Amino acid sequence: MADPRTSIISERLRRIRRIIAVSSGKGGVGKSLVATTLALNFAKKGCKAGLFDLDFTSPSTHLLLGVTDEQPREEKGLIPPIVQGLEYMSLIYYSSGQAAPLRGADTSNALIELLAVTLWNDLDFLVLDMPPGIGDAVLDLIRLVPRIEFLVVTTSSQLAFETVKKLVSLLQELKVPVVGVVENMKMTESRNVQRQTEAFGIKFLGEIPYDPEIEGSIGKPDKLLGTVLGKKIKEISQSL
Amino acid sequence: MADPRTSIISERLRRIRRIIAVSSGKGGVGKSLVATTLALNFAKKGCKAGLFDLDFTSPSTHLLLGVTDEQPREEKGLIPPIVQGLEYMSLIYYSSGQAAPLRGADTSNALIELLAVTLWNDLDFLVLDMPPGIGDAVLDLIRLVPRIEFLVVTTSSQLAFETVKKLVSLLQELKVPVVGVVENMKMTESRNVQRQTEAFGIKFLGEIPYDPEIEGSIGKPDKLLGTVLGKKIKEISQSL
Repeated sequence: MADPRTSIISERLRRIRRIIAVSSGKGGVGKSLVATTLALNFAKKGCKAGLFDLDFTSPSTHLLLGVTDEQPREEKGLIPPIVQGLEYMSLIYYSSGQAAPLRGADTSNALIELLAVTLWNDLDFLVLDMPPGIGDAVLDLIRLVPRIEFLVVTTSSQLAFETVKKLVSLLQELKVPVVGVVENMKMTESRNVQRQTEAFGIKFLGEIPYDPEIEGSIGKPDKLLGTVLGKKIKEISQSL
Repeated sequence: MADPRTSIISERLRRIRRIIAVSSGKGGVGKSLVATTLALNFAKKGCKAGLFDLDFTSPSTHLLLGVTDEQPREEKGLIPPIVQGLEYMSLIYYSSGQAAPLRGADTSNALIELLAVTLWNDLDFLVLDMPPGIGDAVLDLIRLVPRIEFLVVTTSSQLAFETVKKLVSLLQELKVPVVGVVENMKMTESRNVQRQTEAFGIKFLGEIPYDPEIEGSIGKPDKLLGTVLGKKIKEISQSL
């Protein structure tokens, strides 16, 4: 029998204009940082924006935003708290930060549950901080979230880009739109990632230099927006 | 009914003296690099060593080692090829580098299958390059691999270390030995990670400075062993 929640999810997301899934081939490339800063930039320029942390492998947007005691409110569903001008929801509200891992079916179930119960307002942009790679959860999200578009984050490292190639091939095969690739934590001059991205027929959105200031702006969104990364992502947000 | 392969796995691993699972809370911290360099160092000092890449999220040890056409040989099981003095096996031999992702049950099945069919010689050390985080595959490996010991890799970033705390708490709860924590890609002076590691009652194995030479030593094991990282891991390998 079809899970009735899947049609509820479509209904829940109907009034959101664009849903941007910030994704990566592997972890540790700055995906959560890009997702958070992108959502903050949308809000800053006056768009109605939301951020949804679905990275059950290591949820971290709450740390980046400096979420303290904001909690969703229950009222025929879960109403996301407003954090830094964003409607904000995270899987941490499901697992409450406990160490106990969710087994595969539980993870999938938690994702579907959260998608089904969260009551977003009309939004211009909902940014999803995706689980890394191309595991079950990503496949579920592609299946469940209508009009999902991917923005892929990589570093300059060939190891990271090899995994991006797999992700992008899969997305192209499934005919899921890819708005582009961002090269993060760049340390040396090279057009390698740009060239390889464009060879896939995908837009290269830009590069962000490695920025030692970032660690000190964890939990301080205003500071984050003022970093080189913040400014680069502002440019990228305007090109989407 | 119990899967008969689980008792076969015990038998397969019986003649391996120590099994070191190189792990991380999140991806992108250099786990595969540490695992590969650790295994190479064991081999270099005359130990019989193996490397087993179980990171289905982004297998990369074959790139680090520069594996070209070496393949396992079938003979009542799979005999790992010798690569750079190591007995080497990887999940890539299962998936053959295809983009198609394995769904949860398939991943678990592929791991169990590979563990059950691989015929290692008597080894002093088998190094496992683990999947990141604490998902299903990690739980399966803890259950299936007797005498597994964890070596945890992190960066200095608090985001990375938060995920390490979860992993370490889980391992302690499950009474799985943790040989220690390595702090990789260190850029600034700080005893933060060391202090927090020791507060868990876990050994801090050392720190490895960020090293721009690393990218150029991908696929060149001799060069890798000569880097600052290579030398640091040599010291760590002697302390295990």
